[in-house]
Amino acid sequence: MDLLDEPVPGVGTYEDFNTIDWVREKSKDRDHHREIATKSKESALALMKSISDAFSGWLLMLLVGLMSGALAGGIDISAHWMTDLKEGVCLNGFWFNHEHCCWNSNETTFQERDKCPNWKSWAELIVGTNEGPFAYIMNYLMYVCWALLFSFLAVSLVRAFAPYACGSGIPEIKTILSGFIIRGYLGKWTLIIKTITLVLAVSSGLSLGKEGPLVHVACCCGNILCHLFTKYRRNEAKRREVLSAAAAVGVSVAFGAPIGGVLFSLEEVSYYFPLKTLWRSFFAALVAAFTLRSINPFGNSRLVLFYVEFHSPWHLLELIPFVLLGIFGGIWGTTRLGHYPVLEVLVVTAVTALLAFPNSYTCMSTSELISELFNDCGLLDSSQLCNYANVSVTKSSSDALPDRPAGQDVYTAMWQLSLALVFKMLITVVTFGMKVPSGLFIPSMAVGAIAGRLLGVGMEQLAYYHHDWVIFRGWCSPGADCITPGLYAMVGATACLGGVTRMTVSLVVIMFELTGGLEYIVPLMAATMTSKWVADALGREGIYEAHIRLNGYPFLEPKEEFSHKTLAMDVMRPRRSDPPLSVIMQDGMSVEEVESLIAETSYSGFPVVVSHESQRLVGFVQRRDLVISIENARQHQEGVVSASRIFFTEYTPPQPPNSPPPLKLRGIMDLSPFTVTDHTAMDIVVDIFRKLGLRQCLVTHNGRLLGIITKKDILKHMAQMANRDPDSILFN
Amino acid sequence: MDLLDEPVPGVGTYEDFNTIDWVREKSKDRDHHREIATKSKESALALMKSISDAFSGWLLMLLVGLMSGALAGGIDISAHWMTDLKEGVCLNGFWFNHEHCCWNSNETTFQERDKCPNWKSWAELIVGTNEGPFAYIMNYLMYVCWALLFSFLAVSLVRAFAPYACGSGIPEIKTILSGFIIRGYLGKWTLIIKTITLVLAVSSGLSLGKEGPLVHVACCCGNILCHLFTKYRRNEAKRREVLSAAAAVGVSVAFGAPIGGVLFSLEEVSYYFPLKTLWRSFFAALVAAFTLRSINPFGNSRLVLFYVEFHSPWHLLELIPFVLLGIFGGIWGTTRLGHYPVLEVLVVTAVTALLAFPNSYTCMSTSELISELFNDCGLLDSSQLCNYANVSVTKSSSDALPDRPAGQDVYTAMWQLSLALVFKMLITVVTFGMKVPSGLFIPSMAVGAIAGRLLGVGMEQLAYYHHDWVIFRGWCSPGADCITPGLYAMVGATACLGGVTRMTVSLVVIMFELTGGLEYIVPLMAATMTSKWVADALGREGIYEAHIRLNGYPFLEPKEEFSHKTLAMDVMRPRRSDPPLSVIMQDGMSVEEVESLIAETSYSGFPVVVSHESQRLVGFVQRRDLVISIENARQHQEGVVSASRIFFTEYTPPQPPNSPPPLKLRGIMDLSPFTVTDHTAMDIVVDIFRKLGLRQCLVTHNGRLLGIITKKDILKHMAQMANRDPDSILFN
Repeated sequence: MDLLDEPVPGVGTYEDFNTIDWVREKSKDRDHHREIATKSKESALALMKSISDAFSGWLLMLLVGLMSGALAGGIDISAHWMTDLKEGVCLNGFWFNHEHCCWNSNETTFQERDKCPNWKSWAELIVGTNEGPFAYIMNYLMYVCWALLFSFLAVSLVRAFAPYACGSGIPEIKTILSGFIIRGYLGKWTLIIKTITLVLAVSSGLSLGKEGPLVHVACCCGNILCHLFTKYRRNEAKRREVLSAAAAVGVSVAFGAPIGGVLFSLEEVSYYFPLKTLWRSFFAALVAAFTLRSINPFGNSRLVLFYVEFHSPWHLLELIPFVLLGIFGGIWGTTRLGHYPVLEVLVVTAVTALLAFPNSYTCMSTSELISELFNDCGLLDSSQLCNYANVSVTKSSSDALPDRPAGQDVYTAMWQLSLALVFKMLITVVTFGMKVPSGLFIPSMAVGAIAGRLLGVGMEQLAYYHHDWVIFRGWCSPGADCITPGLYAMVGATACLGGVTRMTVSLVVIMFELTGGLEYIVPLMAATMTSKWVADALGREGIYEAHIRLNGYPFLEPKEEFSHKTLAMDVMRPRRSDPPLSVIMQDGMSVEEVESLIAETSYSGFPVVVSHESQRLVGFVQRRDLVISIENARQHQEGVVSASRIFFTEYTPPQPPNSPPPLKLRGIMDLSPFTVTDHTAMDIVVDIFRKLGLRQCLVTHNGRLLGIITKKDILKHMAQMANRDPDSILFN
Repeated sequence: MDLLDEPVPGVGTYEDFNTIDWVREKSKDRDHHREIATKSKESALALMKSISDAFSGWLLMLLVGLMSGALAGGIDISAHWMTDLKEGVCLNGFWFNHEHCCWNSNETTFQERDKCPNWKSWAELIVGTNEGPFAYIMNYLMYVCWALLFSFLAVSLVRAFAPYACGSGIPEIKTILSGFIIRGYLGKWTLIIKTITLVLAVSSGLSLGKEGPLVHVACCCGNILCHLFTKYRRNEAKRREVLSAAAAVGVSVAFGAPIGGVLFSLEEVSYYFPLKTLWRSFFAALVAAFTLRSINPFGNSRLVLFYVEFHSPWHLLELIPFVLLGIFGGIWGTTRLGHYPVLEVLVVTAVTALLAFPNSYTCMSTSELISELFNDCGLLDSSQLCNYANVSVTKSSSDALPDRPAGQDVYTAMWQLSLALVFKMLITVVTFGMKVPSGLFIPSMAVGAIAGRLLGVGMEQLAYYHHDWVIFRGWCSPGADCITPGLYAMVGATACLGGVTRMTVSLVVIMFELTGGLEYIVPLMAATMTSKWVADALGREGIYEAHIRLNGYPFLEPKEEFSHKTLAMDVMRPRRSDPPLSVIMQDGMSVEEVESLIAETSYSGFPVVVSHESQRLVGFVQRRDLVISIENARQHQEGVVSASRIFFTEYTPPQPPNSPPPLKLRGIMDLSPFTVTDHTAMDIVVDIFRKLGLRQCLVTHNGRLLGIITKKDILKHMAQMANRDPDSILFN
């Protein structure tokens, strides 16, 4: 498209906080391809180059997978160790976490891992005992102090070195993938600081998760590794293909769900996702998952974060509680998360730590909590939640246990869980939006899992004591294992996560990869669908869309239909009362005239026309390219002065003698600008912008140039139609 | 877009073998939506209508899933019964198949199911014994006769009632989904005849599978059920969304792999696949899978066709044989299947039956064969393939068996499998393309599975006898279960299927759903990638693309990049030597003039311009709409005669007295035709056509109309650039 005789550096690049032109970038990539393909027939070296070019994409994917997997493993291990550090320290070496410390001591059995001699709580270490109120307060204090230290470090590092490292990063990544440029958002400093502060923030016990930030970390890896390959460094569209794959990698390492990750990238994050990227994302996601597994941070050689195995099928009637959980998730999804960000991170940390420590379910890390809630109680489980009265387990089946009455511990656990639910809900609303790396996946899942488990145990006890009720008859006879509270927890977690993010297929697939059982897809799907419908009915947007809108990013939502009956002429500029469109004539304008046009206006580009009278469109020239080219000509091209004439025509007419040499700029003009007629319905225009990734489009009437529509005009128009402030769209 | 004052029936519809205009269809749907949304605020009834409209999509999906699942179950059961009918009959009732017949008789144990007294082979029934050469010949003859009868019936039914029912149907469905219209291809007759003949063809023992045709059957269901809902009946774009989901349903019921089915539809079949369709497809695929399971045609309450469970992990070195299988699959994928269709179906059936009967691996149904090849030999397996010498099974692990030396039976099986491999390869090449419903998935998988099992057993014996070799040291010590021949069979099947269809992610996900083990994804992926690369290097196209090209369908491949440096002006018509473009002036042309223009040309539409001199574009009018409107006006509008003037302008100028009343046709004109400049690179034009689903695009130069590019022009140009005959593109 741009065929420069002598390419001027900078022409064809973009400024910060601007939108890329997808058509031009993809065209550039095809040019590059064509060139390599032509050359490859000439020599063996060029053929080698062509082959290495073809495989560079795969190599890049491999590297992204390896690097992200390794980083995720490091984050997991560090966070685990630092979370345990809040409770105590290992005498064998301070770098061991609780579990690791007790593995090494042979004296303990697995059941008594809490009581291994080498692991000392802070009270034991300082005052020599773990008993009594004084030791308790000691541990309590140390817990709060560590939490404060971690969160202080996290917030200071983010503020000092990489302000882009805060939050989950997914709204910004969505915007970047749609073609926006935010320099440094995926840079090396963001990567380093986000990795470190993520560990600190998670370890501090704040109610936040590492899943969203892991997507950001993986995208940083992808972006940084792009610099190794010219093809990806130079082309903004190709780089976004890599970032789409990296987003898949992020979810893959967060949950150990490579297929779910790819679908997440496709459904939730990506904008331009060709099939080639699908295949490569899948590869990268797998590499990352296996890298993570070989690091084995969870110590169980499982790929997935929450591995569960359920033994009993579900009954059709159970769909009613599942739908109820879906409704709960939908309501949770409309909670205005992040609208009340408390800026004093330390206060929130202190409150969180103070309230969390006394309750064993909030004291443990959120992932552990979810893991425990998902768990189906086996015979050997010694946890509080599984302390059922052991009645008449006649069959020697270690797999399926019949429903049993709850023991005292279970009732205690129920109370603690109820308190934990209230605490988690309140603290998550306050925490999200703080200036530390924070994800929403895990806190949302925790809220849902607690609610689900509560409902599940309730149902179980109801079925046990009232198995003669009509609804339980036939499938809940005494001794039957008819209700699995762990499944309820899982359904609840799915519903809440779905309500917040509005994911659908990818969410179900992620959960399917966690359980591996196709039969539990139906409950998960019912809950996901209900929660999405409820959340959509109560308030249209998911959390990411809401944040994109709050930040005023120019993001053209691909899922939302434009449903108003306006025409291109209603949206285009200039409006009826405005001065006419600023255009450049293809021949005859002087450098001075063009420069004053540039100075007077702030448009990012100008249409080039045959003449002011005919308004016949010739092409379109970018402001940045024009500025750079004129500046360059003034400096390097002999004789170019303010009086020189600028020509966009193919042939320059002979100049009168003594006139300064002309400036030929056809090379920087886009000869194929997109046009629509003024009568084109706006829904079609929006469709074209979305599908082709345009920055601007010219409007004609009967072959005459009439106006211009930019992406920002469209977003403003959409905001106006939705009764929002059109000036909330901030960037170009 | 089309705002008719009084809509003329037929305006806005399409003729057979024509391409739809996606932009217009989607715009129509948005109009419909808008209308319902506006009305819904007026009355409770309209609100109800609006809600039912919103849920009609889900209801339709439910129905498609139920109907397809039920049909697939019926096909499975019938095919099973009729395949067994070739061997014998059940005395309890002729409608029982072999397995079912022997279930009912309590006298037999599972191991001896072949010898249950109620099941009589034809020899037993007729001459009273199953021993001796005479009985063998008797059975042989009956087997061939039944096969001939089935295939004769199949071919006659297809020829007599539904010629569209032959083949797999996937190439045509791809073409239809891309916007082409083939009336009757998805009609009720095709559905009925395809269902019946599919059972007949599969039962006749021909080397064909039911998976591809099941996709066609599901799409027929989708298309027929669309007629129940106005929204889908009237809109070609909406209907294609349903068909995309139906394609997912087809694969879901074929393999019991709903996620794989959705990805298959996305990756392989669909053209326009919005995210809403993804979610609905998933729902439909699940419903279908569960419907099929509740019918339980395989009698094992498994969702999947080939359920496998492997117990031992694979070793990194095994990637070498897996890649070898991938290469084999790639080569198999370039076999020119269907290029030698033998028209005499009965001859092929006879040859197939005659050659297949003596070899137990070709005599059984192909799905059973694949099932047996995938199977990991347990201790209790009594099949020939699992007859290993039982050496020192010390551990009481019923799961993992160590590698053992092969028994005599295994060697016999190897010989038979080698013969079966040659036979299957030859007969599949001949069979595919015959005029019966035939799929390629199962025969291809069988070829790959046989090759894989052969290699796997070879590797296993090599490792057993030479466990001291360097490559086996460390992981294949005696007594270790290091090589799983079933996994090799699975990898081989994946490779061959991948080579033929060039599926990637969807194939791996389908196979993953069959095994359920994430760790086997890497071998499957290695084989898929190798086979795709090898096949692409040897010959570019997959089987579906090849068939689309052979049939001359106007299909714009979304995966293939257009890589030539031509411009729009090189492709547009009229060419330099042609007569000028036929245009209609917006005012002043008489009915007679327009009618003669229509009669003289065969273009599907005409641009409307301001005047011949200025060539300023106003709009575009479809030939069909123009013909219908003029005809309608001549019949119903008083005074419209040949001399009447046709106006496309907004306001009709006052007519001189005594002149016939003018004909106002602005309503049928598309006021927003797509235009590109003559300097637009063809790769961009192709991209626009693909992404927006255009039928035609007008070409301008400096605001003047210059020419037109249709989808057919692009396809012809692409054929020309690839040194193929441009006249091979047949339809509009």
